[in-house]
Amino acid sequence: MRRLMTTLEYDGTAFHGWQLQAEGRTVQGVLEEALHKTAGHPVRVTGASRTDSGVHAEGQVAHFDTESRLSAGEFLRALNYWLPSDVSVLDCRDVDMSFDARYSASSKLYRYRLLLCPARRPLRDRFVVRVWQPLDLGAMRACSTMLLGQHDFTSFATEHDDSQSGVRNVFRSELVEVADELHYLVEANGFLYNMVRAIVGTLLMVGRNRLTPADFAAILGGRDRKAAGPTAPARGLTLVKVNYPDDPSSPQATAAAEGG
Amino acid sequence: MRRLMTTLEYDGTAFHGWQLQAEGRTVQGVLEEALHKTAGHPVRVTGASRTDSGVHAEGQVAHFDTESRLSAGEFLRALNYWLPSDVSVLDCRDVDMSFDARYSASSKLYRYRLLLCPARRPLRDRFVVRVWQPLDLGAMRACSTMLLGQHDFTSFATEHDDSQSGVRNVFRSELVEVADELHYLVEANGFLYNMVRAIVGTLLMVGRNRLTPADFAAILGGRDRKAAGPTAPARGLTLVKVNYPDDPSSPQATAAAEGG
Repeated sequence: MRRLMTTLEYDGTAFHGWQLQAEGRTVQGVLEEALHKTAGHPVRVTGASRTDSGVHAEGQVAHFDTESRLSAGEFLRALNYWLPSDVSVLDCRDVDMSFDARYSASSKLYRYRLLLCPARRPLRDRFVVRVWQPLDLGAMRACSTMLLGQHDFTSFATEHDDSQSGVRNVFRSELVEVADELHYLVEANGFLYNMVRAIVGTLLMVGRNRLTPADFAAILGGRDRKAAGPTAPARGLTLVKVNYPDDPSSPQATAAAEGG
Repeated sequence: MRRLMTTLEYDGTAFHGWQLQAEGRTVQGVLEEALHKTAGHPVRVTGASRTDSGVHAEGQVAHFDTESRLSAGEFLRALNYWLPSDVSVLDCRDVDMSFDARYSASSKLYRYRLLLCPARRPLRDRFVVRVWQPLDLGAMRACSTMLLGQHDFTSFATEHDDSQSGVRNVFRSELVEVADELHYLVEANGFLYNMVRAIVGTLLMVGRNRLTPADFAAILGGRDRKAAGPTAPARGLTLVKVNYPDDPSSPQATAAAEGG
């Protein structure tokens, strides 16, 4: 038995999220199907992040165990042969049996794309959420900075189980202007359910001056989900990267290079 | 009777190109349908460029005549209400009856996106063509520069009518690296049928060292389509902008601003 990790990109539009469900097409489901065909036996995968319905990924990570003797590069090529066009394996490599895509992760980076444009933009609409109104960027930036460090983010979680800790450590929380888009980049050691989208929904209320930075600080401190803004739509959100303390991305191990 | 011009963005994936056809969904077709509903009478539009099946646009321009009394801003909003999600009107404004979207154009700018990556990239596959092999960028750049200025581009046209002149004036012909992509940007006073895609197909043969820059020069001079490389796939191509000598994009005329 050996363990492999894969890095995946997917367009979340046509998926009911990452996690396997009884009904509905999921990324985990199509990946396990492709792995079954490749390895010749049923394979169960563990993903670093259970991205929601409609959320995209540029760097989702998953691990699985197999008895197959195929090389990591052969796995990469075979998986990309079997996978549908909206999922792709970017990298595949052997890892230690102690590696766990979910629990070994030290942090995850998400990007939320806002398009500051009154008109629909068909070339980008799958990946952005449009904002018509002018936004108070200074106020939004002040609030995004408040999230840095260790906080109880219960106010920004939906369906949060109160018996579990809502404390997470945020390493990056930044608004970046990219041409006619505004990107919210957030990296943390973990995220509560819907946390990024709830943060963005609340930042947008600040941008429209419907909440002040003082209100935002009170919401964060209040640990009460009902006080925060609405959950922003899924399609603006992308899982950019999952980081691990022992970086498995050493160049000599890169199966993607031989996967060409 | 008055004349209006519109600027359009579309995802060409699900269209049989711009031009109205007896069968098949075209951009002109869905635009004329939306205009009929908006203006209350049948409307015929003229596009600046008859983009092919699968080719995208960020700045296609079209004009039409109408007896409707709706303002340009009202046209913009109504058209975007009726148009399907893969086409959008970015701008709509009144123009002089002498303006012709096609014949008044002084130049058009196209972008062709090559993705230098062995793996499929689901978030970009609709808009890029992947290249697996390493490319000889220096040789490709030398060739792209040869196209600048006035030349007979018959070698880079498919189905070219020999009785018509193949002479066009190229103002920009440039390869630009953008992260893991290579973009070919070309601006000219006009393009022969399939010209950009034939140029890119031939530049790729140079990049793979299957043609030398001297071969490329001979192909350009030979005015023989059979000597050039294959036509590159449509999905990598986007019509970026149509330029007019009397720039109708003066800020005070911008209906997009009131269209928000």
